[in-house]
Amino acid sequence: MRAARLHEYGKRPQIEEVAEPQITDPLDVIVRIGGAGLCRTDLHIVEGQWREKSGVALLYTLGHENAGWVHEVGGAVGNVAPGDAVVVHPLITCGLCRACRAGDDMHCATSLFPGISADGGFADFLKTNARAVVKLGAGLEPADVAAHADAGLTAYHAVKKAARLLHPGTTAVVIGAGGLGHIGIQSLKVLTPAHVIVVDRSEEALELARQVGADDAVLADGSQVEQVRERTVGLGAEVVLDFVGEGGALEDAIGMLRQAGTHYVIGYGGELRVPAIDVISAEISFVGNLVGTYNELAELMTLARQGTVTLHTRAYPLGAINDAMDDLDHGRLHGRGILVP
Amino acid sequence: MRAARLHEYGKRPQIEEVAEPQITDPLDVIVRIGGAGLCRTDLHIVEGQWREKSGVALLYTLGHENAGWVHEVGGAVGNVAPGDAVVVHPLITCGLCRACRAGDDMHCATSLFPGISADGGFADFLKTNARAVVKLGAGLEPADVAAHADAGLTAYHAVKKAARLLHPGTTAVVIGAGGLGHIGIQSLKVLTPAHVIVVDRSEEALELARQVGADDAVLADGSQVEQVRERTVGLGAEVVLDFVGEGGALEDAIGMLRQAGTHYVIGYGGELRVPAIDVISAEISFVGNLVGTYNELAELMTLARQGTVTLHTRAYPLGAINDAMDDLDHGRLHGRGILVP
Amino acid sequence: MRAARLHEYGKRPQIEEVAEPQITDPLDVIVRIGGAGLCRTDLHIVEGQWREKSGVALLYTLGHENAGWVHEVGGAVGNVAPGDAVVVHPLITCGLCRACRAGDDMHCATSLFPGISADGGFADFLKTNARAVVKLGAGLEPADVAAHADAGLTAYHAVKKAARLLHPGTTAVVIGAGGLGHIGIQSLKVLTPAHVIVVDRSEEALELARQVGADDAVLADGSQVEQVRERTVGLGAEVVLDFVGEGGALEDAIGMLRQAGTHYVIGYGGELRVPAIDVISAEISFVGNLVGTYNELAELMTLARQGTVTLHTRAYPLGAINDAMDDLDHGRLHGRGILVP
Amino acid sequence: MRAARLHEYGKRPQIEEVAEPQITDPLDVIVRIGGAGLCRTDLHIVEGQWREKSGVALLYTLGHENAGWVHEVGGAVGNVAPGDAVVVHPLITCGLCRACRAGDDMHCATSLFPGISADGGFADFLKTNARAVVKLGAGLEPADVAAHADAGLTAYHAVKKAARLLHPGTTAVVIGAGGLGHIGIQSLKVLTPAHVIVVDRSEEALELARQVGADDAVLADGSQVEQVRERTVGLGAEVVLDFVGEGGALEDAIGMLRQAGTHYVIGYGGELRVPAIDVISAEISFVGNLVGTYNELAELMTLARQGTVTLHTRAYPLGAINDAMDDLDHGRLHGRGILVP
Repeated sequence: MRAARLHEYGKRPQIEEVAEPQITDPLDVIVRIGGAGLCRTDLHIVEGQWREKSGVALLYTLGHENAGWVHEVGGAVGNVAPGDAVVVHPLITCGLCRACRAGDDMHCATSLFPGISADGGFADFLKTNARAVVKLGAGLEPADVAAHADAGLTAYHAVKKAARLLHPGTTAVVIGAGGLGHIGIQSLKVLTPAHVIVVDRSEEALELARQVGADDAVLADGSQVEQVRERTVGLGAEVVLDFVGEGGALEDAIGMLRQAGTHYVIGYGGELRVPAIDVISAEISFVGNLVGTYNELAELMTLARQGTVTLHTRAYPLGAINDAMDDLDHGRLHGRGILVP
Repeated sequence: MRAARLHEYGKRPQIEEVAEPQITDPLDVIVRIGGAGLCRTDLHIVEGQWREKSGVALLYTLGHENAGWVHEVGGAVGNVAPGDAVVVHPLITCGLCRACRAGDDMHCATSLFPGISADGGFADFLKTNARAVVKLGAGLEPADVAAHADAGLTAYHAVKKAARLLHPGTTAVVIGAGGLGHIGIQSLKVLTPAHVIVVDRSEEALELARQVGADDAVLADGSQVEQVRERTVGLGAEVVLDFVGEGGALEDAIGMLRQAGTHYVIGYGGELRVPAIDVISAEISFVGNLVGTYNELAELMTLARQGTVTLHTRAYPLGAINDAMDDLDHGRLHGRGILVP
Repeated sequence: MRAARLHEYGKRPQIEEVAEPQITDPLDVIVRIGGAGLCRTDLHIVEGQWREKSGVALLYTLGHENAGWVHEVGGAVGNVAPGDAVVVHPLITCGLCRACRAGDDMHCATSLFPGISADGGFADFLKTNARAVVKLGAGLEPADVAAHADAGLTAYHAVKKAARLLHPGTTAVVIGAGGLGHIGIQSLKVLTPAHVIVVDRSEEALELARQVGADDAVLADGSQVEQVRERTVGLGAEVVLDFVGEGGALEDAIGMLRQAGTHYVIGYGGELRVPAIDVISAEISFVGNLVGTYNELAELMTLARQGTVTLHTRAYPLGAINDAMDDLDHGRLHGRGILVP
Repeated sequence: MRAARLHEYGKRPQIEEVAEPQITDPLDVIVRIGGAGLCRTDLHIVEGQWREKSGVALLYTLGHENAGWVHEVGGAVGNVAPGDAVVVHPLITCGLCRACRAGDDMHCATSLFPGISADGGFADFLKTNARAVVKLGAGLEPADVAAHADAGLTAYHAVKKAARLLHPGTTAVVIGAGGLGHIGIQSLKVLTPAHVIVVDRSEEALELARQVGADDAVLADGSQVEQVRERTVGLGAEVVLDFVGEGGALEDAIGMLRQAGTHYVIGYGGELRVPAIDVISAEISFVGNLVGTYNELAELMTLARQGTVTLHTRAYPLGAINDAMDDLDHGRLHGRGILVP
């Protein structure tokens, strides 16, 4: 089969022929890829940012945001059958450790993360396991929902944590109305009664934000912290969801927080830096966010089926992966890029 | 009456004669001080660290950790009467804003913080209001519990937030077994089934930690992060309570955290600094802590009355405030210093 | 002033002239009534159902769902001023007991409930206190929102408790689409992503339910339990909100519950009766609901101002109270009846 | 192998020779029984109380509270190996449904409950699966901890739910200091700072209650409701844990509840019966409890290993099952009866 493989940090992946994955465990599931989302993390992997964290040995296949059809299953798999359309939770988990049993799939003691720490889905086939596949309801096509597997799930997960703080009269600020941010905005509107203010450097992104439900939009022209404070009677926002995490976004987020507010860190690249006296005197919190749980992915599929949360995507053939990466890198890719084998 | 007043940042407060506070609002309460705790924050105020945050105009009276007897009450006060022994919640709150009505006294929209932003309790009398006074049960003496008003309450508040994460089999690390830390250790033991590991630079402090219930103690000799990780099977702790907040403690705390762990920032002086990729890839959180609620102070008084949480204190006459400050500054003050008028 | 006073259980209240209420406490607030909602509880009071619970001595003025304009305030009141439009939280609370300080206004240790245990608002003026008045934002008229003070608040409070159980893919059943139920439906839609099924005996009520956002409607023709189970793949609903509480509704609610489901008891009149083995083998819960908190009433005013939650009301002059009671008693009053002095 | 099998409702089980269970699924685990606890539910099964709920076809083997050593495992089992000492979670769960993935093992969509709805552990061997076995730490013997698998877990699960309501100064009442109750008392003391009052008809049981940590004990001589109210300043208790559920206990529990209190229903046999007006006017809740989660069983094993929670047991040879049942039925069995093959 074809696969986009990373040979060396600093160099783009290459399409090449590799052997198809094989069932080796009774709970294995092999998925024929219908679509695989391209993520800024793929650029970061190529740059080497994840080299130590993932601990993966090169060469391997990228692609951690996958959907398709079940192709083959191991002997103990009962929840899906060949032909089923599925979206693939990004982690292969054990199901037996405390984290798995508490629903915290992201913190499984022995997980694999295909596309980051194992072969991923920029290929014709992907190997995952029975615990990772969410069956798609009628009307959902793999290529249309693939971007929910990571981008959507990560945004939804962060919003779900924030939702408990958001009652009528509160404000949630979304920094960055891109691939994750536009799901975040929609998730906020469906899960909470908060007033949603979106901050972005691009007028075009703000326009998209308004279309998907933002109550207010602020251009990040240098006055964004001040503008958010003005819109919150000088007090700041109860919740800031930072989908950017670099280039000043972390500092902005802190500046926009209200007393007792919470900053959800989702984007990365920058450094969180704040004097301890500011943390304690305003009693603020910083909360990391890493993809989400299987049940959250299933909930998101419910919203997708209802049409309550929609995705903006652009398809590329698998062979055009480097065009897609160029477009993403140079800000020409609006919505999520989806590689279709 | 006598009061210890700050005339200038960088210079120690002076004892002088000032007018007694007067009832001006029907909810005012004037307390005759039985004891007022000396806090590292008093040193930080003198150094000027709180100059901008408090916004207070000099000169004013320090002392934000107070207990005593009700001396006089305004016309609308029904919950206490002259003669009642009370511990004083550090904030004067309005009772009508959303925060007050949700129990978040610390985030009252219009609070005063006597001893920080208004005249405090290093004096013969203190003016506060009806909402701030917790009546002491039989057997509790003001000077003995004064240190709970801020040090105890802050430690208890942080532990109470952490408690929801601490089930049997989890580990809580306490960094710093001083004035706040030793209340934190006792609160952890009474509120949670966690395994409590205490980290401190002083063997003497670790000995005190063990006496008040710590399950394990680690000397901070440079290997403390490694030692905590060894004691947690290489995984780190679910909760780190950092009562120091400077001199490497913030970095240590991050190094000791488990995946999905939470770092409670209580001490201050240093800077929290962490790459966003570390926050998201381990999905860790940082939670600020600022004193605590009135109800929490009342709960702590229940524990004090039971003898479940005890304080280590050392009394000084009010006039010896600068001796007490010297002792605190030079590490000669073990337990909490209490100024007695 | 005029007031509708209850002289004897079993007999309707009479309009008569009484003295205006006077400020006697520095926190008192006297409100000129703009509208006072008529509640089924008023009928129950007349019937004597609350005789023992309220402990009130006859004769007294009914009316526990009030809004109007501040007329006069006590000397310590700073949060409102004469002329302010306000909706009145049903309870006069102390602000100093643990419940008040935890936000549980309903469980204040020394509360009064005007219209139930003290003189209410079917009159020209009502005496309450500073803690009970919520200022109305621009565009809200007292008579239009009076019904939120009790009916709206009670429905909203129950929905807010239920919201934490309702993620995408879950079902909430609303039994009874009347005065409270139609607020419950709207609150569910704005606070949660649940699928909302409404059950009522009246086709007209179901039509109203659909208009205010119900996803599905079931006529209570005897097959309602079966129909709800069919619509939930035979499993039942995660949440049932019972706004009726008599005439078979309690039994229906239990029959509609899913394993681990929760039955919110809001309406009353009947008896909750269930074998303990059914409670434990399905691990179901029953949760009582009593009006709501001040902060919840403020949140509801935010939703009312946004137009997200709307009320269906019908105005009567105060003097026509017995016509309004007749209409309510005989099912001729659709929406909430509002008495306007 | 030998097994105690139920042939007919109303008649005691008989010991007979049956075939040993066989591995048929890759996740199957066969456990050699070290001890199996005898539960009042076993008497209720014999009486026919569970006939319809369990839906099991006679004849089958009783015993739902099991511990022992792993004897044989299916091909996909990696978490245990033959020879491992284990305690067996009472449910065989799928691991793939929403409930399993949220940690709610009790509500697995396709679970089996050996000893209730399938062959249980009053036998030489028991068939369960990989998801049900908790490895025992060094120093724990299967026969000593078997009673935790159901009795201990059920008590612990209910206490864990209640713990969030129990801060210093609150009261938890335990009705029934028997097999479950004495674990409940110990769990309350280790997880919460509540004042624990135990109510029982037997002075001997109350003596045991005091030994395991009860703060106060009340003889159920008819005045128990009044006595609990006296001990709670006339207000009642925040939490009542009812381990009896029949013979007046349900009524007593309601009578002992404080405003906004919660009644945890654990024992069964009787009927919960309360006017809806009482549920709403005091805003009380009733919460069903059904065994507990796998993670809770693992937590309980941590407490058992620490010696924080201890069991009172009495061993019988498997062949003496009917003596054990007689003793239980006639109140001669103090502590939990354990059948040892």
